[in-house]
Amino acid sequence: MHITFLLYDGMTALDLVGPYEILSRLPNAQVNRVALNPGPISTDSNLMIVADSKMSELSKTDVLIVPGAGSATTLQEYPMILEWINKIHSTTTWTTSVCTGSLILGASGILDGVKATTHWAAFERLSMWGAIPTPMRIVQDGKIVTAAGVSAGIDMALVLSSKIVGSDFAKAMQLALEYDPNPPFDVGSPGKAPKALVDSLRLKMTSRFEKIQE
Amino acid sequence: MHITFLLYDGMTALDLVGPYEILSRLPNAQVNRVALNPGPISTDSNLMIVADSKMSELSKTDVLIVPGAGSATTLQEYPMILEWINKIHSTTTWTTSVCTGSLILGASGILDGVKATTHWAAFERLSMWGAIPTPMRIVQDGKIVTAAGVSAGIDMALVLSSKIVGSDFAKAMQLALEYDPNPPFDVGSPGKAPKALVDSLRLKMTSRFEKIQE
Repeated sequence: MHITFLLYDGMTALDLVGPYEILSRLPNAQVNRVALNPGPISTDSNLMIVADSKMSELSKTDVLIVPGAGSATTLQEYPMILEWINKIHSTTTWTTSVCTGSLILGASGILDGVKATTHWAAFERLSMWGAIPTPMRIVQDGKIVTAAGVSAGIDMALVLSSKIVGSDFAKAMQLALEYDPNPPFDVGSPGKAPKALVDSLRLKMTSRFEKIQE
Repeated sequence: MHITFLLYDGMTALDLVGPYEILSRLPNAQVNRVALNPGPISTDSNLMIVADSKMSELSKTDVLIVPGAGSATTLQEYPMILEWINKIHSTTTWTTSVCTGSLILGASGILDGVKATTHWAAFERLSMWGAIPTPMRIVQDGKIVTAAGVSAGIDMALVLSSKIVGSDFAKAMQLALEYDPNPPFDVGSPGKAPKALVDSLRLKMTSRFEKIQE
């Protein structure tokens, strides 16, 4: 089973690494870490993660994972990435995204009429691509699975691995990662956080997300 | 404020990237990603993450984060890492670890008589270094903060950032990461998982963890 992680400059490291820690360990997984060009990729927190193959050399995969980006990633600069996603999506069993990765799926043209989610601060932008914004942490519509902001990628990967190989694997992974979360505050989604915090963060993040679609 | 992440071959990617996504964004953070030598570091899931400076060139830091390793990392091969941790610890405001990173702190000689936690399957091994194994997800003893397995690093970083700059920052980070976890199963810690799963995973993981201390 070929599991392909898309890397690109400006992506959010945890969007990638959360699902990676789980899905790369699927039984018999052949893992591809692809980018426009192989080599170190700069994330939006300046951590460099290495892509080891060129996306144009990969023409099919079973599972695709597209991370999001929290800062100025101007996808217009990368039409090749969008074309590649659109093409490889026709070969996948599962096409997935984390956070604003769903805006990238949308821009590649595969979310028209599809229920999807994204980071809460970018939620309305999904409809720009014809997607049906669906306010859940994980949304499955056919073979497309989208996750909400950043940390939702961990939950998504557990759900997805359960679908792919069954709950025994997913449960073992959850225990191996000691994923029994205990966040110090109850402010992890906009419905739970104080309005002032939501508004100020939305203002700050929206201006960044806009750049994803400029 | 200097925030230093230790990278080494065999480490677990999510142990690093969970806290990194939060602590690297502390106001005025100067982030160091150090290793024995700069360059790509191989994690235990084969993801390569880049260290950009040599640990021997860093003689002090405010915050140190030591990730754990899930596979055969033989620390005896790296006495320089242990010596460096021991030395730099005397300069820190906070010394922290995720997962079996606490065994590395222990091997460096700084946990004697200190309350600490680690991955549940390695829990008893903490006492080999004179630490007081403390069964909590996050343990603070003076300036040393240790987190339980892998995903606990996210909770730890939120708690720590709240201590460093206050809860406003930590709450904003939690909302920005949409950290409102919803694991698909309730098996994330050994007290919640079926005994058969705990036993089989313990057997598999313990043999790996032993290599950390051989």
